[in-house]
Amino acid sequence: MTKQFTHLDSHGAARMVDVSGKEQTTRTAVATGILHTTAEVVELLGADGLPKGDALATARIAGIMAAKRTWELVPLCHPIALSSVVVDLALAEDSVLITATVRTTDRTGVEMEALTAVSVAGLTLHDMVKSVDPAASLDAVRVERKEGGKSGLWERP
Amino acid sequence: MTKQFTHLDSHGAARMVDVSGKEQTTRTAVATGILHTTAEVVELLGADGLPKGDALATARIAGIMAAKRTWELVPLCHPIALSSVVVDLALAEDSVLITATVRTTDRTGVEMEALTAVSVAGLTLHDMVKSVDPAASLDAVRVERKEGGKSGLWERP
Amino acid sequence: MTKQFTHLDSHGAARMVDVSGKEQTTRTAVATGILHTTAEVVELLGADGLPKGDALATARIAGIMAAKRTWELVPLCHPIALSSVVVDLALAEDSVLITATVRTTDRTGVEMEALTAVSVAGLTLHDMVKSVDPAASLDAVRVERKEGGKSGLWERP
Amino acid sequence: MTKQFTHLDSHGAARMVDVSGKEQTTRTAVATGILHTTAEVVELLGADGLPKGDALATARIAGIMAAKRTWELVPLCHPIALSSVVVDLALAEDSVLITATVRTTDRTGVEMEALTAVSVAGLTLHDMVKSVDPAASLDAVRVERKEGGKSGLWERP
Amino acid sequence: MTKQFTHLDSHGAARMVDVSGKEQTTRTAVATGILHTTAEVVELLGADGLPKGDALATARIAGIMAAKRTWELVPLCHPIALSSVVVDLALAEDSVLITATVRTTDRTGVEMEALTAVSVAGLTLHDMVKSVDPAASLDAVRVERKEGGKSGLWERP
Amino acid sequence: MTKQFTHLDSHGAARMVDVSGKEQTTRTAVATGILHTTAEVVELLGADGLPKGDALATARIAGIMAAKRTWELVPLCHPIALSSVVVDLALAEDSVLITATVRTTDRTGVEMEALTAVSVAGLTLHDMVKSVDPAASLDAVRVERKEGGKSGLWERP
Repeated sequence: MTKQFTHLDSHGAARMVDVSGKEQTTRTAVATGILHTTAEVVELLGADGLPKGDALATARIAGIMAAKRTWELVPLCHPIALSSVVVDLALAEDSVLITATVRTTDRTGVEMEALTAVSVAGLTLHDMVKSVDPAASLDAVRVERKEGGKSGLWERP
Repeated sequence: MTKQFTHLDSHGAARMVDVSGKEQTTRTAVATGILHTTAEVVELLGADGLPKGDALATARIAGIMAAKRTWELVPLCHPIALSSVVVDLALAEDSVLITATVRTTDRTGVEMEALTAVSVAGLTLHDMVKSVDPAASLDAVRVERKEGGKSGLWERP
Repeated sequence: MTKQFTHLDSHGAARMVDVSGKEQTTRTAVATGILHTTAEVVELLGADGLPKGDALATARIAGIMAAKRTWELVPLCHPIALSSVVVDLALAEDSVLITATVRTTDRTGVEMEALTAVSVAGLTLHDMVKSVDPAASLDAVRVERKEGGKSGLWERP
Repeated sequence: MTKQFTHLDSHGAARMVDVSGKEQTTRTAVATGILHTTAEVVELLGADGLPKGDALATARIAGIMAAKRTWELVPLCHPIALSSVVVDLALAEDSVLITATVRTTDRTGVEMEALTAVSVAGLTLHDMVKSVDPAASLDAVRVERKEGGKSGLWERP
Repeated sequence: MTKQFTHLDSHGAARMVDVSGKEQTTRTAVATGILHTTAEVVELLGADGLPKGDALATARIAGIMAAKRTWELVPLCHPIALSSVVVDLALAEDSVLITATVRTTDRTGVEMEALTAVSVAGLTLHDMVKSVDPAASLDAVRVERKEGGKSGLWERP
Repeated sequence: MTKQFTHLDSHGAARMVDVSGKEQTTRTAVATGILHTTAEVVELLGADGLPKGDALATARIAGIMAAKRTWELVPLCHPIALSSVVVDLALAEDSVLITATVRTTDRTGVEMEALTAVSVAGLTLHDMVKSVDPAASLDAVRVERKEGGKSGLWERP
């Protein structure tokens, strides 16, 4: 087995890998996650496509703000100038689907930024609903698609 | 249905709820999550209980640091003086189990801090393994147990 | 004239004054400010008491989050454990009135936290409306009332 | 009326708009604000053009540091690499005029950064003078001039 | 040898140790450091006890602000409510002596906060003087004295 | 004497200097520092080139994360998009040698980022060892080498 983590050197020490040789190109990543909760909570969050109060807005804004701070949270991520962040929240019967789409024109991909937006939007939903549903669960936080850069398009199989 | 989110006022506006009437007592919360990845990645992370290089340490430290910043990330969380944070990572066949235990002596519970530690440790693992396994998924981020304060002990059913 | 700024020592050097001798008591502060803009902008923000979209929620949440970070922004402010933050936005004919109420149980007052919440909510409104009204102005950012602590109640004359 | 806020999508949801198609050009913005206080406070701040102690320096530095953190405070602002920030404080009879000039070579304008520098310099002055003048007021925080980018020069009418 | 680092558990994993059993008492720490530079630089910084411009104020304020953020920078430090921070800068022939005194009423000592204030004041002096003296060196960053808490007074031997 | 600090204007006021006219080129800086402690502490940190537990990893990661936040800590530093950060820790008899290498492709040098990485790695070692050696000292925090940009190569004489 010859594969290695690029974030570790040959002695296993963590490092922020050198991207100075990479090109500044437009890169996009889409990540998703699901907050599993109860039908009662979903009804409190909204109905008929209409949000009730600021609950969803709070999660959306928290996700956008967190995407910008990914490099402060994840130790080996590069600081990246994000060009756009969109966080979409869709209510299902007893769950909320979170989708984050992030774009940059920089030297490295933005899948971590999309995953961070999803996670923090999910944490904020957790916080919002916990007085009604302390047992909620955030699941399937993962990359769906990324494109741009040398490695090109990747889509979840 | 008379239940409401405590984070919204009667008009639906987001607010940071008043905890000044609550007592400063010792409160503990435990949260968990699972990074699903591949057996190959787990082997790169460690073997026989011995971590290889800084990979797990990086995630552990990221989780601890993020717990302290929960109130910066989750808009309606109160700033809390954390007394202790422990992040434990256990390697399974093709997954990593993340457990965070957080304690405070303050006016509000720390389940959001425990969930944030788990999420950011999970994001950091995502970042570490993504060059080998871009399809990894963070699942089951949820509270297992909380105790202390007026509401007392809660355990996941 | 014998008055002096408490934030400067006798040589004029900035310092964070010692509050260790003060008591931890409940303290409240209310601050206000006004964003002057156009009737067209106010109509885009909402009508008949109903906000249109996330515009007001974004400002409200930004104000709440900034209140918690006051001590990071204002160099000589003490870190304070805020018990509650409420940001209220009221639409008038061609302006938005911003009111922030902040409470703590700590060793120093929270008027700076209330002023910071108002200012950053105001900045966020500036940002929201600037594509339609680049000439908007944030005015009258000031303390209306503070109570608690040794100095007791102060109300704007 | 067809105007809309660019920060909201067609459903009213907040988003960080896509600037990846914009060019990286030099952009400058100037914002101002006025702290209205008392003649006594102004005398404590300085005389004959000479500042007394660190009071003005503290506000100047707070404004510069805040400009760099605008994107952390204002939810839908893009992270921008600032090329220069200058904060100027001019003492008048019973007020302090704050002027911030910010420059970048990036994909979006810097008027929010200039407004943030003015606001936080103003908050810091509020904090400095509050032991002598709790009734001070920060007024007229607004953009005076911006240039660069596709929309070119804008000056306050 | 039976001594161990309290920040590591029995398996060597980093953790934030539990201080919930400790008492909230007044604790003080003093740390110092020296920036070695040139006589030319010291002359530019000030003369006859009078600072020239904002150079020393910038370092003093940076040190105070950094002390409050110690727990964000040093991974295993607890968030602490600082009661006071004083940073003193004394010019010598070809060096600047930095002294930071920090006080809290909390569950753990503040020597890390004092060391952080010294280090960041020193970094800021490095930054200020580097255009004239790129060879400057920050030395002897260390604790001089700490008191309070169960371990009582410690003074550098 | 005609030299002046570039960070101060002709009146001595602090400012963030304008780098918009500079070119985006690859720039590298190397800084070092030494934590002087005891042989007993070094033995606890590792032996035979093998670290014991997370102690060194914690310092390494703290240094990397701090390098990215230099512009938040040092008031007049520009925000810079770092391309790589490596922090190396070498155990000697009774000391730890810290070396940080930072690279960017931006408009200004990264010696402050390298110095910040060294300082915060050093602070983290201070924190790790303080229960065993409260008298440890961080020394010789200085730039060893920088290259790139108009001023070209500089090496410590």
